[in-house]
Amino acid sequence: MSQKDLYIYNSLTSSKEKFKSLRNNSVGMYVCGPTVYSDVHLGNCRTFISFDVIYRYLAHLGYKVRYVRNITDVGHLEDTGEDKISKKAKTEKLEPMEIAQKYTNSFREILKKFNVLDPSIEPTASGHITEQILIIEDLIQKNLAYISNGSVYFDISNYNEIDSYGKLSGRDLDNIKSNSRDLVSQDDKKNEFDFALWKKAEKNHLMRWNSPWGEGFPGWHLECTAMSKKYLGDEFDIHGGGIDLKFPHHDCEIAQCIGHTGKQPAKFWMHANMLTLNNKKMSKSTGNNILPNELFSGINDQFSKPYDPNIVRFFFLQAHYRNELDISESAIQASEKGFNRLIEIINRLSLVQTVKTKNDKLLDTIKKWENNCYDCLNDDFNTPMLLAEIFNSNKIINNIENNVTEISQVEKDYFINLFDIFLNKILGLNFKKDKINNDSVLEILLKLRDNARKHKDYKLSDSIRDELAKIGINLNDKD
Amino acid sequence: MSQKDLYIYNSLTSSKEKFKSLRNNSVGMYVCGPTVYSDVHLGNCRTFISFDVIYRYLAHLGYKVRYVRNITDVGHLEDTGEDKISKKAKTEKLEPMEIAQKYTNSFREILKKFNVLDPSIEPTASGHITEQILIIEDLIQKNLAYISNGSVYFDISNYNEIDSYGKLSGRDLDNIKSNSRDLVSQDDKKNEFDFALWKKAEKNHLMRWNSPWGEGFPGWHLECTAMSKKYLGDEFDIHGGGIDLKFPHHDCEIAQCIGHTGKQPAKFWMHANMLTLNNKKMSKSTGNNILPNELFSGINDQFSKPYDPNIVRFFFLQAHYRNELDISESAIQASEKGFNRLIEIINRLSLVQTVKTKNDKLLDTIKKWENNCYDCLNDDFNTPMLLAEIFNSNKIINNIENNVTEISQVEKDYFINLFDIFLNKILGLNFKKDKINNDSVLEILLKLRDNARKHKDYKLSDSIRDELAKIGINLNDKD
Repeated sequence: MSQKDLYIYNSLTSSKEKFKSLRNNSVGMYVCGPTVYSDVHLGNCRTFISFDVIYRYLAHLGYKVRYVRNITDVGHLEDTGEDKISKKAKTEKLEPMEIAQKYTNSFREILKKFNVLDPSIEPTASGHITEQILIIEDLIQKNLAYISNGSVYFDISNYNEIDSYGKLSGRDLDNIKSNSRDLVSQDDKKNEFDFALWKKAEKNHLMRWNSPWGEGFPGWHLECTAMSKKYLGDEFDIHGGGIDLKFPHHDCEIAQCIGHTGKQPAKFWMHANMLTLNNKKMSKSTGNNILPNELFSGINDQFSKPYDPNIVRFFFLQAHYRNELDISESAIQASEKGFNRLIEIINRLSLVQTVKTKNDKLLDTIKKWENNCYDCLNDDFNTPMLLAEIFNSNKIINNIENNVTEISQVEKDYFINLFDIFLNKILGLNFKKDKINNDSVLEILLKLRDNARKHKDYKLSDSIRDELAKIGINLNDKD
Repeated sequence: MSQKDLYIYNSLTSSKEKFKSLRNNSVGMYVCGPTVYSDVHLGNCRTFISFDVIYRYLAHLGYKVRYVRNITDVGHLEDTGEDKISKKAKTEKLEPMEIAQKYTNSFREILKKFNVLDPSIEPTASGHITEQILIIEDLIQKNLAYISNGSVYFDISNYNEIDSYGKLSGRDLDNIKSNSRDLVSQDDKKNEFDFALWKKAEKNHLMRWNSPWGEGFPGWHLECTAMSKKYLGDEFDIHGGGIDLKFPHHDCEIAQCIGHTGKQPAKFWMHANMLTLNNKKMSKSTGNNILPNELFSGINDQFSKPYDPNIVRFFFLQAHYRNELDISESAIQASEKGFNRLIEIINRLSLVQTVKTKNDKLLDTIKKWENNCYDCLNDDFNTPMLLAEIFNSNKIINNIENNVTEISQVEKDYFINLFDIFLNKILGLNFKKDKINNDSVLEILLKLRDNARKHKDYKLSDSIRDELAKIGINLNDKD
């Protein structure tokens, strides 16, 4: 176990800071989840895998982590001002909540395949309307929000009198003005950079709730404030999300919280970087895109063969979460080879012969290596460094295999357990499962039978066929 | 495909009625889901499997089914008036929503193992507070509900002036009075049989929302009214649930709906019957209880070995959903045998030799059998009759095997496809998956290797060892 301090890069201060939880041994972590109006983006998967490792490591350190990752099932608006889920519901001719359910289910399935742990709470935006309304009422009362034509907007000008908007992203208002893409209903707003807390539902809008300002639906930024506050309190330890959410989403959250509670909600703001495909931004419209299931099945235009979710996860973790990462066939193939080499190392270790005498010197060497591994994790969850360090264990194993060093069962068990801790428990890589690939077992059996038939050993080939038939696998020989 | 009418037993009229959907080809179906404060009860699984078959069959008939099955994450009260989830949260020292999330996740996992399809929408009670408040406000305005000490109650006396309460269960008020177990806060109520629409949250109550009557939480019965109305409209086709929900839950729902919209919400009310264990009611307190995962793993005091979810599903479907069913070791073992016999029948069919000439007479026989199968389903989803009918196919296959009847590929394909339709698609039994049991494949390979070693065929045994090592399975020979 690591005895050293954990340092986390805080986007708010642009520096690595020593992590200390706000409440004894508990950690509250909020991560912005998906908008469930289409299949989850591979880049988002990378983000959720990054925070999964962070969650796993904090739990491993002994923290009781309450991990909240929301589902945005309402309020995420298109540039046109249309709700993304409502729009998709019209296209697919389904009730908006059927759309949300469909893509929530598929999101969960994909994350399961990636061996991502369930968060402690997975709240939905639509499930927290009353909480959002309460915050809006408070902001209006504090003169930080105003009602306009059935909608409610956050008043950036007034807010800037108590604190400055855009702290996280470091943007100033002029910069924000020129980058604003919120072109709709500008007439309702006092200033173009004000953002919606509540939107009036037009006649044909499907998702609508009653509110003090008439029927409408909440703005996107508000839900995360309502849910993080409800489940983690006014102040909590970590707020994470994809780097694209830094502005405006997270800056809006901060403004809402400071306006509402007077407090900066999260001590650490963490942002996971982008994933590109063949060195270009992924985008459905240009076709430079791949869905997770397309990657797993091999049915896609980008890659020549299927890649196991476990390999993709390993590939992601070979880059630091704060760095941009490019996925390409050659890069992922290199990862696949690396992954197999790692399995080989572990298998070799499991096969080394032990002696009866304990070897304290070797145990020290292994513990030194263990500490190096923890150092990587303690340095802002540096998974690529950790994986490189894990490969370094090869030298120790070489020495044992070549009888330079002797190993007893004590050191062997300790060593093997560390692989389990770092690879399975903390990085969430599925080594054990991968070791027994059942399809491959069947393949071996079929190859064996083919071989027997070629050599006219029909006794063997028939016995394989009959045994398989017994368990319901019927072979239809074409020849 | 069935050309005949579907008849469904309607609990509201206590008779089988011809099913006709309210809106063209669409069916709206609402089923009361679990209260997520503990592991799902095996009896509840039976209920959800029953409605899964109903959902699958309606979809198979060509209906576009919107299937709503809720998650009760607030409001289901103990006899003591305590919220079940809040109570558990205190015991487990977790936020109530962590409890709800934990058991929602485990519920979903168990249902996945049972091969139960996801509903179209899986809404939560806590996610529909605003909708519930609106209904309460309307009921108060209509003099069908009254505020008392921060809570709101449904007024049965006033309701009885517009319709009679207890229609579904057929109870009269005297009967209800003597059976009422709602002993708490009686002082707040005008009449002891009135039920809570909104409960005032006491100081220490963890789950609380703002409302026109102060902070509180919704009553249990109301959530289903709010969610069914929201996603299926004031009137929809089917409302289902376990038979224990008939009274008071469903009678309260009916009263709320008739009071609020003037309409009886569902055309058909369907109730799935109880599951007992060794002829006694399942109950945690007496120890006469078994959890789904305990049944699957074999780690329990009741059964001698593990049973696959697929076998348990098959066992459930061998009883009609409206009949009580008792689970015992002997009963489930009989089902396991039956299931294996069914696999055997299908395997035998897949192995029959075909001739080139089509056999129209045989096709007629098969189609007659097909019709018999549909007749079972059309008779209130009679799955035990259907399974018995499926076993009858054995006679046809016997005749083919014994060369009494010849079969061409046309009839064979048609026949095999029917098994796929009835067993996999409609009954949701997992035949294909079960056919490839990967552990068994490895077993065959290991048996083969043992045999080779015994016969000193080391070339074969070594090649198997090496091939397995390649995929990470290392064999440690003891001898």
